[in-house]
Amino acid sequence: MFQDFRQRTTPDEGAARLRALREEMARVGVDAFLVPRADAHQGENVPARDERLAWLTGFTGSAGLAVVTAERAAVFVDGRYRLQVRDQIDLSQFTVMRHPEDKPGELLAETLVKGRKVAFDPWLHTASDVETLTKALEPRGVELAPSPNLVDAVWADQPAPPTGAIVSYPEALAGRSAADKRAAVALDLEAADLSAAVLTLPASIAWLLNVRGSDIARVPVPLAFAILHADGRVDLFTDPSKVAEVDVGSGVRVMPADAFEAALAALEGRVAVDRDSAPYAVSRILNAETVWTRDPCLLPKASKTPAEIAGAEAAHLRDGAAMARFLAWLERTAPEGGLSEIDVVTRLEGFRADTGELRDISFETICGAGPNGAIVHYRVTERSNRQVVPGELLLIDSGGQYLDGTTDITRSVAVGPVPLEARRPFTLVLKGLIAMTRLVWPVGLAGRDLDAIARSALWAAGLDYDHGTGHGIGAYLDVHEGPQGLSRRSAEPLKQGMILSIEPGYYREGAFGIRSENLAHVRAAAVPDGGEREMLGFETLTLAPFDRALIDADLLESGERAWLDAYHARVAAALAPLVDDQTGRWLTRACAPL
Amino acid sequence: MFQDFRQRTTPDEGAARLRALREEMARVGVDAFLVPRADAHQGENVPARDERLAWLTGFTGSAGLAVVTAERAAVFVDGRYRLQVRDQIDLSQFTVMRHPEDKPGELLAETLVKGRKVAFDPWLHTASDVETLTKALEPRGVELAPSPNLVDAVWADQPAPPTGAIVSYPEALAGRSAADKRAAVALDLEAADLSAAVLTLPASIAWLLNVRGSDIARVPVPLAFAILHADGRVDLFTDPSKVAEVDVGSGVRVMPADAFEAALAALEGRVAVDRDSAPYAVSRILNAETVWTRDPCLLPKASKTPAEIAGAEAAHLRDGAAMARFLAWLERTAPEGGLSEIDVVTRLEGFRADTGELRDISFETICGAGPNGAIVHYRVTERSNRQVVPGELLLIDSGGQYLDGTTDITRSVAVGPVPLEARRPFTLVLKGLIAMTRLVWPVGLAGRDLDAIARSALWAAGLDYDHGTGHGIGAYLDVHEGPQGLSRRSAEPLKQGMILSIEPGYYREGAFGIRSENLAHVRAAAVPDGGEREMLGFETLTLAPFDRALIDADLLESGERAWLDAYHARVAAALAPLVDDQTGRWLTRACAPL
Repeated sequence: MFQDFRQRTTPDEGAARLRALREEMARVGVDAFLVPRADAHQGENVPARDERLAWLTGFTGSAGLAVVTAERAAVFVDGRYRLQVRDQIDLSQFTVMRHPEDKPGELLAETLVKGRKVAFDPWLHTASDVETLTKALEPRGVELAPSPNLVDAVWADQPAPPTGAIVSYPEALAGRSAADKRAAVALDLEAADLSAAVLTLPASIAWLLNVRGSDIARVPVPLAFAILHADGRVDLFTDPSKVAEVDVGSGVRVMPADAFEAALAALEGRVAVDRDSAPYAVSRILNAETVWTRDPCLLPKASKTPAEIAGAEAAHLRDGAAMARFLAWLERTAPEGGLSEIDVVTRLEGFRADTGELRDISFETICGAGPNGAIVHYRVTERSNRQVVPGELLLIDSGGQYLDGTTDITRSVAVGPVPLEARRPFTLVLKGLIAMTRLVWPVGLAGRDLDAIARSALWAAGLDYDHGTGHGIGAYLDVHEGPQGLSRRSAEPLKQGMILSIEPGYYREGAFGIRSENLAHVRAAAVPDGGEREMLGFETLTLAPFDRALIDADLLESGERAWLDAYHARVAAALAPLVDDQTGRWLTRACAPL
Repeated sequence: MFQDFRQRTTPDEGAARLRALREEMARVGVDAFLVPRADAHQGENVPARDERLAWLTGFTGSAGLAVVTAERAAVFVDGRYRLQVRDQIDLSQFTVMRHPEDKPGELLAETLVKGRKVAFDPWLHTASDVETLTKALEPRGVELAPSPNLVDAVWADQPAPPTGAIVSYPEALAGRSAADKRAAVALDLEAADLSAAVLTLPASIAWLLNVRGSDIARVPVPLAFAILHADGRVDLFTDPSKVAEVDVGSGVRVMPADAFEAALAALEGRVAVDRDSAPYAVSRILNAETVWTRDPCLLPKASKTPAEIAGAEAAHLRDGAAMARFLAWLERTAPEGGLSEIDVVTRLEGFRADTGELRDISFETICGAGPNGAIVHYRVTERSNRQVVPGELLLIDSGGQYLDGTTDITRSVAVGPVPLEARRPFTLVLKGLIAMTRLVWPVGLAGRDLDAIARSALWAAGLDYDHGTGHGIGAYLDVHEGPQGLSRRSAEPLKQGMILSIEPGYYREGAFGIRSENLAHVRAAAVPDGGEREMLGFETLTLAPFDRALIDADLLESGERAWLDAYHARVAAALAPLVDDQTGRWLTRACAPL
């Protein structure tokens, strides 16, 4: 079992830990300290030793920041966590602030006076973060000072860094040798007159070296730093015990993690550092010229090789069979009542595990029954666990990590009798998914240029959803992968081989949530005779039926209906050979033409 | 007659004028001088005395820049003018450079060495322009120095500044008194702790004071500067003879244009200056603090009052009747042959003039027969004038300035026998226009969030157009009005009352051009029962049929067909009472259901 449903609640230790931190602050002479939910790699998932925000405040969300002064303690969380944070923290000790509407820098600037000192751990904040804070504090004469981590100083039983083994990633799945990748990225560095690039994102390092790791949940990456030199050599900084079993290749030198600072200090020339992901500490330590450049692995990693696309197809076929077994089971079982959200999550994980290939789930499953479906980032806990009631909707957003690919799929289904008021919005959401999937667009456009296509059917009904239409996905790596995206914020031109989710939704607060999500890869689009421009389009990877009972066929145009019927036929043909007879019969019904 | 078809060709004086400029440069000790196609108001149309670029080079396009050094002379033009510039300049004297791919700053940085001096007239370049140039030149140690205009020094017969009368604009048409506008914008200044705003855009001044002018062709604005104080007082700087006949209102002090610099120097506090439109000179002269802020009149001007929308409707009804007479005449006359593009433009202008209300055309008509239609910014001259040949397409993009509104309409029509290969792209373009017109979207979105909607039908066929989908339009003001727009570059949230063009197109080089353009205003959109969000939509202003012979009805979905039939029914009902019997009969046919 991967998922943990224990409810973490307000620690009794809340006040005591805050007191200990404040005593430490007084001892070292700082007036404020920042506690972000971050490690030095800026990942969504962090190891236990970096759960400082949870240790201090009780808040376990995947993003947040505590600002502690002698008199005040505030926790900044974004819209996803407004409710959760109030359940988890001691409200007598901490004020809840809204991110991004409220600004930590402004709070500090209002609270502190000239000459006061705000300390922060330079390994946990990016250069961009520090720049934003500096802009707010400098005009007030408040000093922003890098410091050892003051939480670590008072956290007696802080866990040690993880030492998960690093393993090779088969070249047959990567489609490209590590030596080739290193040479290609090094060539880019040389062309830009850069002597080296500092890599602090674990997925970049994993991609570059064709390795995977096991330091944290959900993402098979090693926590490590690396320096890629313009001649193609790589220095990899990590606990040497982690690489005992792996051949990282010639030209890759493994050094202990604590050698990283000295290696940074010794670099010469112009060194590439990513302002948005590298720790602030990196550029402070460098004696060479810092050139703010995006992590050079991001774009090549996002553009998957044909082998990676083939792997994704295999993973989605396997995952689709598990989903089919799950959906068939759900349709048989749920209408009788007696299932809880946790039962559903557990059973789904079981079907995925039955494939024998599941390495991990790719993120904590979102399984929202009835009104819980309308909470966009809902994660069931023992405390929130709701019964799956016939006559309601159930939204399940889940995915698997397989060696050949990462999956992420959302289906919303009616449990037993169909709630009629959900059919129209379900169909409008489906129209959005179909429109985006069928879209072809000229080479060079970004997600923000296309986002409206998935929404216009909902808009016409006066409806919308308050999240992006899709995100990038890695190849047995991050389930949220940049730089590609499908939202109004994403300016990155889409390129062949990128994998993205297409996941429009609709949420009726207190009633139900609808989201339909397929993954697709970007490929050259076939255009009819007379086409003049080079166009791109999507090829769907995800294979699982949409709940036909929720579709109002009268709202579909003939082209949309044809797309859906063809998709369902493809799903049935692909999955039938992989499932048991009972599931097979369900599949035939679920994939019948409308 | 407004339009002038004379071909301006390479001046014989080209070499002599360049020599005179270079002598002047040597005399005053500068190594380079910049000659932009601009006046101090950054308008698309400039008075004769500001046609320095044309005087020096012969190039008469509406945008461009000459960079002159002792050895080199280069003319930067954008894609619209690549062909025209080669016809108009003396290629033995001037090199053609591509804007924006080539950069004047880079050319100068490559050409000049440390210590050299680039002079420019600080009234003809914005602060943004100068910032861009400085970034290129500073690292090379090349000095950028404001200077008196060196072209003026050698242009013996340079025309005097225009002295067109300023007249009142009726409050009934503006829908708001000038005093009210001044008070409201002044309140915005006060709220932002600004003591004054410098206004250098003629349309802003015209809007703010409810006046219009007659200094330049096509745009009924006065060339003037103004300072709006935070208490609502306005100082207007212009030739006093221009305001002899107008009551500019109490609280508005008229001062001679040459008092502007002293008034700027005397300002105190924090003064708003628009970086993208105000001359660089303004902030240099200010002794007060310059606060870079968008011209505070832009947004309120763009959001038209109900009276301005009513005026636009009246203007479009009148203009639609003229267009109907024109299109009926064209259908009767053109298939017989013998018409030239100039004949068509002249006749169209005549139909508009027959309304008795036409003050000016709103821009030089684009009338492209056959392959000329594929040249997006084609303007017919006596030299280029092409016969309108039966069996070809004709693209006509034109508009009128009426006291109650500005119009801008494009129709592409088949002359006689329909070229069959044009029907599919014509219908795809029409689908784009219909999709954008029918779109509703949530409050807060910008043109760039919507642009794809007008293109997806073309994209699916492998086609596209290389211009924005639409631009803003003023109320008896600029035919190209910001900040609103409908393109991937436009980040300005669309607001109720804004008028925009919707003008997708398709251009087959060497064969034909298609563009279909309606104007529409943004209004609250009616959403069906159950709609939850505040939505905006378009209401079409333009009234003229689309050429039914060019529509392939099989490519239209039922909703598109219903929209088109309803639009045509509306056009017929609105225009029938205003046209002669012969046009009326044509209108009935042209507007029949598909």
